[in-house]
Amino acid sequence: MNNFILCNENAVFYECGYSCDNEIFLNLDSRAFFLTDARYYFEALETLHGAEIICVNGSLIDSARKILRSERVRELIFDPFDFSYMDFCELSKNLHVNFKPRPNFSKKKRMVKSEKELEILRSAARFGALKFDEFAKFLKECGAGKSEKELFFEAEILLKNKGEFGLSFEPITALNKNAAKAHALPSDDTLKNADLILVDAGIKFKRYCSDRTRTAIFDENINFKKSQNFKNQKQQEIFEIVKEAQNLAIKAVKPGIKACQIDKIARDFITENGFKEEFFHSTGHGVGLDIHELPNISPKDDTILQKGMVFSIEPGIYLQNEFGVRIEDVVAVSDDGCEILSENV
Amino acid sequence: MNNFILCNENAVFYECGYSCDNEIFLNLDSRAFFLTDARYYFEALETLHGAEIICVNGSLIDSARKILRSERVRELIFDPFDFSYMDFCELSKNLHVNFKPRPNFSKKKRMVKSEKELEILRSAARFGALKFDEFAKFLKECGAGKSEKELFFEAEILLKNKGEFGLSFEPITALNKNAAKAHALPSDDTLKNADLILVDAGIKFKRYCSDRTRTAIFDENINFKKSQNFKNQKQQEIFEIVKEAQNLAIKAVKPGIKACQIDKIARDFITENGFKEEFFHSTGHGVGLDIHELPNISPKDDTILQKGMVFSIEPGIYLQNEFGVRIEDVVAVSDDGCEILSENV
Repeated sequence: MNNFILCNENAVFYECGYSCDNEIFLNLDSRAFFLTDARYYFEALETLHGAEIICVNGSLIDSARKILRSERVRELIFDPFDFSYMDFCELSKNLHVNFKPRPNFSKKKRMVKSEKELEILRSAARFGALKFDEFAKFLKECGAGKSEKELFFEAEILLKNKGEFGLSFEPITALNKNAAKAHALPSDDTLKNADLILVDAGIKFKRYCSDRTRTAIFDENINFKKSQNFKNQKQQEIFEIVKEAQNLAIKAVKPGIKACQIDKIARDFITENGFKEEFFHSTGHGVGLDIHELPNISPKDDTILQKGMVFSIEPGIYLQNEFGVRIEDVVAVSDDGCEILSENV
Repeated sequence: MNNFILCNENAVFYECGYSCDNEIFLNLDSRAFFLTDARYYFEALETLHGAEIICVNGSLIDSARKILRSERVRELIFDPFDFSYMDFCELSKNLHVNFKPRPNFSKKKRMVKSEKELEILRSAARFGALKFDEFAKFLKECGAGKSEKELFFEAEILLKNKGEFGLSFEPITALNKNAAKAHALPSDDTLKNADLILVDAGIKFKRYCSDRTRTAIFDENINFKKSQNFKNQKQQEIFEIVKEAQNLAIKAVKPGIKACQIDKIARDFITENGFKEEFFHSTGHGVGLDIHELPNISPKDDTILQKGMVFSIEPGIYLQNEFGVRIEDVVAVSDDGCEILSENV
């Protein structure tokens, strides 16, 4: 039984190479259907593969119900996170269909990337990393005195590359103590010499996400390399711990090891160095069409890593009211280890 | 019975002056609760009013269930569009609570704006309209030869005002035949003399939205006023019909009339002029914290207009493969008519 229904944009794109903001995708035993309205119909006709396109005048859910009836569907997998309570009730009302909830079933399917997807993810990572170099250049030339808000705005403009790229998420450009907040809204604090700056940013290329974090010292030589010379000794110390935690975790990635074991390696090293409580998030997350996919590199995820899985490795240490350090790269599991996607930039 | 639960950002903000991306708001007979996690706790403490703030380590839904039990809640209003099927099932499982679905109940509460909200909406509309003037200036100086994609990107930068404003939605900057697509992704078509350009854009000021559309001819005098001199006679003709349809609809707005009657006035005028099928969307929509609120100025909405309601009036005519014209302003219902929010710019 492989009948399923989807209405999540990235999940639908994965199935048929097209998606928009008003759609239902139905995969039935012998046929697949893509339901949308007149605004998207012609675009869909040009782009979509592997499904019959139905142009609906009215409710997509009513139209899906008609197909489920006429095709005599008895069982249908759905993702209960995908549908609002309202939409699911309307979809399922008085239908003799056994709706089987499968949370995140599309993300599970998408966990191992194809060679074609890996190529796109490599390009996204490469473009994303180049943007860090451009941002360093901008900071060197005219960063001094700019507020976090202005830095945020400039980073956003740079990342979008004159509209060519989307954003994986709103970038973080946090200074000093603001870098210690996992959720930092840009403030009016301004950039001064010897400040610590944390940048977490990603672009979307052909719909696939990049994701990268660097922590650096701001001076005339600012760069986002993984070797930094902070004036503040404590900052340097923390930086080296995070860097080594990331390095150890990346080195451990290979097929057959569990996601939680990778998390444990980074977490244990940080704990041994006395900062257990100051690393309060997961070590990483899957990256693909969505910025947060599977596996989770967390203590709770016992997914066994396979070749082709793509995820971030991003340990951090956050000292409240002082500063925070995070270093992040996206890796792809290879035959016997992993490839850092933006390594050769 | 006024017990309700909310998890929509704008709905929660309306109740307590604060919201974030991980929250549940519970309004019970004698107490109100705001549930969030450690990332937002301190921000909430500083900003939020009228609710007890609970810092949750783990699932917000589990925490809400505990409160519903300990407060012996028997009935609870919820919006079935607010919760995913998964979250609602987890929330309601094995609880002796009568969950009452009330679709859009927060949007209904928010339909009539307070004087304070009107002031913010006026400011948003004013800033939004000024951005049209700035965009006209940009087009005059360096618009020629720019692609739709570049125009889109420049509009976005302008609207954000160096990070001061949010966007109500992604702006539309459509040329000629692309202006006939209600949903137009920016293309590589470039701006030439005598082109028709449709711009639909809005900003967010203090979380409230502006929304405005203008259609103009591109030449050395480009501006986004409601009087235009197209070189193409058909464009001029259509422009005048849309302008008059908007004018008639705006003039008809007053307390006591139904939303659908306003829609009918614009629609009838366009129909009489022979373009019934070419005006295929509603005449307008409520505007507030959300860009799409209530009432709908559509044939189906029989809401009786009241003083303080705020909505767009935006008729359009779209000639496939030729061009499209839409003119939009946001109005607030007054004692005996309405106020165009950005009129005095």
